[in-house]
Amino acid sequence: MAPDRLKFELATRERTQWVEITGQVADLVTRAGLTRGHVLVYVPHTTAGVTINENADPDVADDMMRFLDRLVPRRGDWAHAEGNADAHIKASLMGSSVRVAVEEGRLCLGRWQGIFFCEFDGPRRREVWLSLDPQTD
Amino acid sequence: MAPDRLKFELATRERTQWVEITGQVADLVTRAGLTRGHVLVYVPHTTAGVTINENADPDVADDMMRFLDRLVPRRGDWAHAEGNADAHIKASLMGSSVRVAVEEGRLCLGRWQGIFFCEFDGPRRREVWLSLDPQTD
Amino acid sequence: MAPDRLKFELATRERTQWVEITGQVADLVTRAGLTRGHVLVYVPHTTAGVTINENADPDVADDMMRFLDRLVPRRGDWAHAEGNADAHIKASLMGSSVRVAVEEGRLCLGRWQGIFFCEFDGPRRREVWLSLDPQTD
Repeated sequence: MAPDRLKFELATRERTQWVEITGQVADLVTRAGLTRGHVLVYVPHTTAGVTINENADPDVADDMMRFLDRLVPRRGDWAHAEGNADAHIKASLMGSSVRVAVEEGRLCLGRWQGIFFCEFDGPRRREVWLSLDPQTD
Repeated sequence: MAPDRLKFELATRERTQWVEITGQVADLVTRAGLTRGHVLVYVPHTTAGVTINENADPDVADDMMRFLDRLVPRRGDWAHAEGNADAHIKASLMGSSVRVAVEEGRLCLGRWQGIFFCEFDGPRRREVWLSLDPQTD
Repeated sequence: MAPDRLKFELATRERTQWVEITGQVADLVTRAGLTRGHVLVYVPHTTAGVTINENADPDVADDMMRFLDRLVPRRGDWAHAEGNADAHIKASLMGSSVRVAVEEGRLCLGRWQGIFFCEFDGPRRREVWLSLDPQTD
């Protein structure tokens, strides 16, 4: 297995946009030849995060985005002068990484779970970094 | 050590209910023979999460549950038609996994810390998955 | 590499105070001789957390602290009698650990990312625990 950090890029089109990345993560895990262990899905940005939630009904992600936009309004009494203080806060509420086990080469996700990249200050070009922990007996 | 995914089940009785699972996690770590490394405590559901917080005073978990129920009301302007959009949001706010180090066969938790399964759409039968990362020198 | 748990202490001076700890984490990783793998940055407290966010403009952390203080007021209708129920809730919203990859002895953080210890019930003396996962090919 290549020890190098794995990554992929994505381009978001909205200011707030959740993008499901389960397929891309699974593909990279397969191509790296990881059959058992864990993968860390890491977002190297400070105005985007990552979370695991339902991927069957897109309304779930829509509700989350709208909830966070109401909870942390873009226009507020913020000190940070770049106009995206809200995006930084939302990023920390979701978190910058998720960790998923891998068995027999497959992501061990629950039946309804998908991995979502959470854009809070798009549109932008973004990266997702994966790092693999192979497990040996 | 058995390489198979470890898991246990639990049944919740309330819609919102935090269940301390520290003992079950510690038991499975012991039975698996893990003496040094890490354990990932993973919730494979999208309307439940997991967090680490104080387990000495049950009021702490009660306050958190009530806070989250007020922050994300069940009845709201949600698109998701199943009536549990709030539970999905609360799950992502808490997160789907926690990671704890293991030394000499014991969970490395702080003095007041316990691991809580966070039910947001019960009562249901639920699973908790553990995956172990043994550490070798 | 020393298998022992690594840790460092810090003293906070305000009730709510975010302290950047990126340098301390990097130093301990270097001193432990970890060149490739991961580090888990773990906060063993229940009224403090840890998060990754922007470290270039200190206003970002200030905005986050003020947002959380407004979202979860200290004086509220709390059951927990110690007067710090809000701090427990904020700790779970941020989380008790972050995980960062290490390559060539360096933390794999994004360009603007730093690691912040999030004090919510200071001033106190606190600990941060690190555990290392070296990766072998």
